[in-house]
Amino acid sequence: MSLQRKNKKDLKEACVKQAMSIVDKKGLEHLSLREVARKLGVSHQAPYRHFPSREHLLAEMVRRAYEDFASFLRNREPGENEEDDLRNMGIAYVTYSMKHPLYYRLMFNTSLPNPEAHPEMMKSSQFAFNLLVQGIRQVHAIRFPDQVEERSVKDALFIWFSLHGLCSILESEVIGAISLDKATQASMVDAIFERLSWVMNHDANLQV
Amino acid sequence: MSLQRKNKKDLKEACVKQAMSIVDKKGLEHLSLREVARKLGVSHQAPYRHFPSREHLLAEMVRRAYEDFASFLRNREPGENEEDDLRNMGIAYVTYSMKHPLYYRLMFNTSLPNPEAHPEMMKSSQFAFNLLVQGIRQVHAIRFPDQVEERSVKDALFIWFSLHGLCSILESEVIGAISLDKATQASMVDAIFERLSWVMNHDANLQV
Repeated sequence: MSLQRKNKKDLKEACVKQAMSIVDKKGLEHLSLREVARKLGVSHQAPYRHFPSREHLLAEMVRRAYEDFASFLRNREPGENEEDDLRNMGIAYVTYSMKHPLYYRLMFNTSLPNPEAHPEMMKSSQFAFNLLVQGIRQVHAIRFPDQVEERSVKDALFIWFSLHGLCSILESEVIGAISLDKATQASMVDAIFERLSWVMNHDANLQV
Repeated sequence: MSLQRKNKKDLKEACVKQAMSIVDKKGLEHLSLREVARKLGVSHQAPYRHFPSREHLLAEMVRRAYEDFASFLRNREPGENEEDDLRNMGIAYVTYSMKHPLYYRLMFNTSLPNPEAHPEMMKSSQFAFNLLVQGIRQVHAIRFPDQVEERSVKDALFIWFSLHGLCSILESEVIGAISLDKATQASMVDAIFERLSWVMNHDANLQV
């Protein structure tokens, strides 16, 4: 690799790293290519060599967040059976939101760049979502094989929303304002997973 | 009411209104008593007559948001039966998050002031949460009377998290990045409510 090429790659990496730091410390509204250049001490045209716009930089950040997230989910502890394994994926989801709040926010709290204009970002978010869908399909394939097609994506959305709600509320500390007793607080996460398993085990062909 | 008293009350109201506008337009991190005073064209000591600190002002804003939210939930269309009525409360929740995004964010996305130090705020958030708990208790009282105590608060937390996740994801537009087909998108909210009813109708005494 020529020195010039290496430096080019270095600048791209440095831009992304600096951009992450700006969003982490000051919030997304402070992100601009100009601010990245200023912090790096390079000319304010320099980042444009790698990112035609702020949206392209942000899309690359979000893409990396999804990639990291998906790899975290895939490295979960394997379960003893399909349902157990799906539960472990859920636990990995919650763990990730607490361990990597910046990436978590980039994926789910950010006004994302237009996905159509950033196919690599879109690919990485679909990949992460499909990990969940696949885990659900494997569980249903055993107990409700005739319902796999009809419900797996809907169940995936439901589980995702429930876990996202849990993680967001935990992060906001709003739970302190409704003064739950200690036992309820301590069992809260288990109660959520218990109810998700009720949904997974519900026979959608039964009228409720 | 003396003119002086009226003016005092007017200033308090003007502070809250101005603070709401600052948070709405620029974000919570731009809120300060000094900025409120500057925008109102009053001395920067003036807001302190009503709010000993920024946290007190924020607590009052959050309290009002919860009060407004609770009154919106209570004014929902009554259901034909308890379960239907609970569903209407859920629909009112989602509607509120879309119609009143600022208040919604103040309640659930804000790092709240310490609830212990702001009992009025805490009372209003508990009141809103208890509307949901009561709705759930009424449903369980009919079908699972022996489970009312054990599960109503846990079900309330679960339903809250699921709806909060739904509302947050809808607001963030991240759903566009996983490219759902149109039929799934169109049926998404219904699918969430369907699964919440599965949970409500699940017999917690059954092993799943």
